[in-house]
Amino acid sequence: MDQLFYLADLFGVAVFAITGALMAGRKSMDLFGVLVIAIITALGGGTLRDVILGNHPVAWIKDDTYILVASLAALGTVVWVRLTRPINEYGLLLADAFGLAVFTVYGTELALQHNLQPGTAVIMGVITGVGGGVMRDIICNEVPLIFQKEIYAIACIAGSLMFIGLREVALPSWLVTTGSMLAVLLIRLAAIHWRLSLPRFHLLDRE
Amino acid sequence: MDQLFYLADLFGVAVFAITGALMAGRKSMDLFGVLVIAIITALGGGTLRDVILGNHPVAWIKDDTYILVASLAALGTVVWVRLTRPINEYGLLLADAFGLAVFTVYGTELALQHNLQPGTAVIMGVITGVGGGVMRDIICNEVPLIFQKEIYAIACIAGSLMFIGLREVALPSWLVTTGSMLAVLLIRLAAIHWRLSLPRFHLLDRE
Amino acid sequence: MDQLFYLADLFGVAVFAITGALMAGRKSMDLFGVLVIAIITALGGGTLRDVILGNHPVAWIKDDTYILVASLAALGTVVWVRLTRPINEYGLLLADAFGLAVFTVYGTELALQHNLQPGTAVIMGVITGVGGGVMRDIICNEVPLIFQKEIYAIACIAGSLMFIGLREVALPSWLVTTGSMLAVLLIRLAAIHWRLSLPRFHLLDRE
Repeated sequence: MDQLFYLADLFGVAVFAITGALMAGRKSMDLFGVLVIAIITALGGGTLRDVILGNHPVAWIKDDTYILVASLAALGTVVWVRLTRPINEYGLLLADAFGLAVFTVYGTELALQHNLQPGTAVIMGVITGVGGGVMRDIICNEVPLIFQKEIYAIACIAGSLMFIGLREVALPSWLVTTGSMLAVLLIRLAAIHWRLSLPRFHLLDRE
Repeated sequence: MDQLFYLADLFGVAVFAITGALMAGRKSMDLFGVLVIAIITALGGGTLRDVILGNHPVAWIKDDTYILVASLAALGTVVWVRLTRPINEYGLLLADAFGLAVFTVYGTELALQHNLQPGTAVIMGVITGVGGGVMRDIICNEVPLIFQKEIYAIACIAGSLMFIGLREVALPSWLVTTGSMLAVLLIRLAAIHWRLSLPRFHLLDRE
Repeated sequence: MDQLFYLADLFGVAVFAITGALMAGRKSMDLFGVLVIAIITALGGGTLRDVILGNHPVAWIKDDTYILVASLAALGTVVWVRLTRPINEYGLLLADAFGLAVFTVYGTELALQHNLQPGTAVIMGVITGVGGGVMRDIICNEVPLIFQKEIYAIACIAGSLMFIGLREVALPSWLVTTGSMLAVLLIRLAAIHWRLSLPRFHLLDRE
């Protein structure tokens, strides 16, 4: 089971790295920039969580595989685009939703292991899930997408709350984990399919 | 006295969260974005200070009240604006100056408790006071306001230095605290009133 | 030897602070902004490395000299420009290459002292070398230069790898250090001279 979760985690890293590499390509970055943005997108959220928690050493320092997977995914993206293969945007959205589910649940679990209060554990889940993407957008000089587009972070929050709730019940831990991952995944897919979004807060700039 | 200081701290959190929510509104963010920007504006400076100091766990992890107050202030701002109530910009500036005073003095005090040298303690005071606002501006894709507008950080530096100086004298600690907060507040109010600003450094872009 | 390395480190701090102050000037920041951007450019990379490693207290907290040197370099830059003295861009590039060499090797060495794996040690070298400049660009609302312009980070990576490699051989440590610094310096100078750059990854924005 742990093995499976580790593989899912690496899959999430690869997918997030791909979205980072694509964004870097939109900004015409060089290969080093592509690599950096991909790695930050994939591992930035977890690193921010660990740094705030004081949880050292962070995951990718303990285990080189994370950096390796993110780098290979980035280089693979560049090769793929150079070969003028089309990017399956819908497939990427699905994969991204899966990565989000894994990262969120993992971040929440780690927070609970650190004996954090439920509210803070949810925040750690959200940071793990969306932190890397927000960093990617900031470095690429964009207002972070997830603060503007269809429902994304709400899926994290729901999955994180569900994980905390299910853990209180006497369920086997694999069920708690997969159940709450499924919640993130389904909410996100529903949001994509029906283009659900949160109400916006418009304020005219008076400066 | 500690109780009073805690309340002042929470007041600062609420005020900073309101400025964050307003900025998010100017960027037409959704409700989640408003919440995140408000929380980061309110708690980002203190978190950055704690992470640099290695001071774990950070304040809002120990005590859920901080996140709660910031969230409520953000939601309150959205409701207020939706009801088309006017925003009292001047009142907000006053409240912000008060929050700045509290955060700066608290950051300096914490640094001295960690036995930092005076120069570094001032920097920690400044980080605590202005860090959240700088993060807000970076995420919202603006060049940070406090590097361009009227005197702001100078008020922090002065208050922080005053705190360090008064502590050396044999004064009761409540007087040291309130005296240096008052210094921040008065300098900031004078800067707003007379539109005082630091000289600018203009350099033509030759690229 | 240690003394010499410390002086080289301070020289790197001063040079990076100057590039920060110049960028702040291009953004018409006030004096406080100039100071902050200069300090972040000079010390941001090392601070990020230490925070990720959990290596507390960070260098500039232990030793006030770093902040002092960065501040003086920033103020000196402002005075120099105000006196309408020309900026020797080429000299600045050379000095920057030297600073990059020192920071990279120091970051790698520190990582190895923390028993990091070679791959991660290289990343720490790169973070130390380029982190401050990236932060400068993000705060000043620019897409980081080093992800777009001629070879820069590759020089870091090469120097870092060389340091790790030479350390395995039975060479005196001063030779390992200066040899790998020289590698960074020469690659960077060659890149500037022949305008070498990495291939770019262009992707049309379909949004």
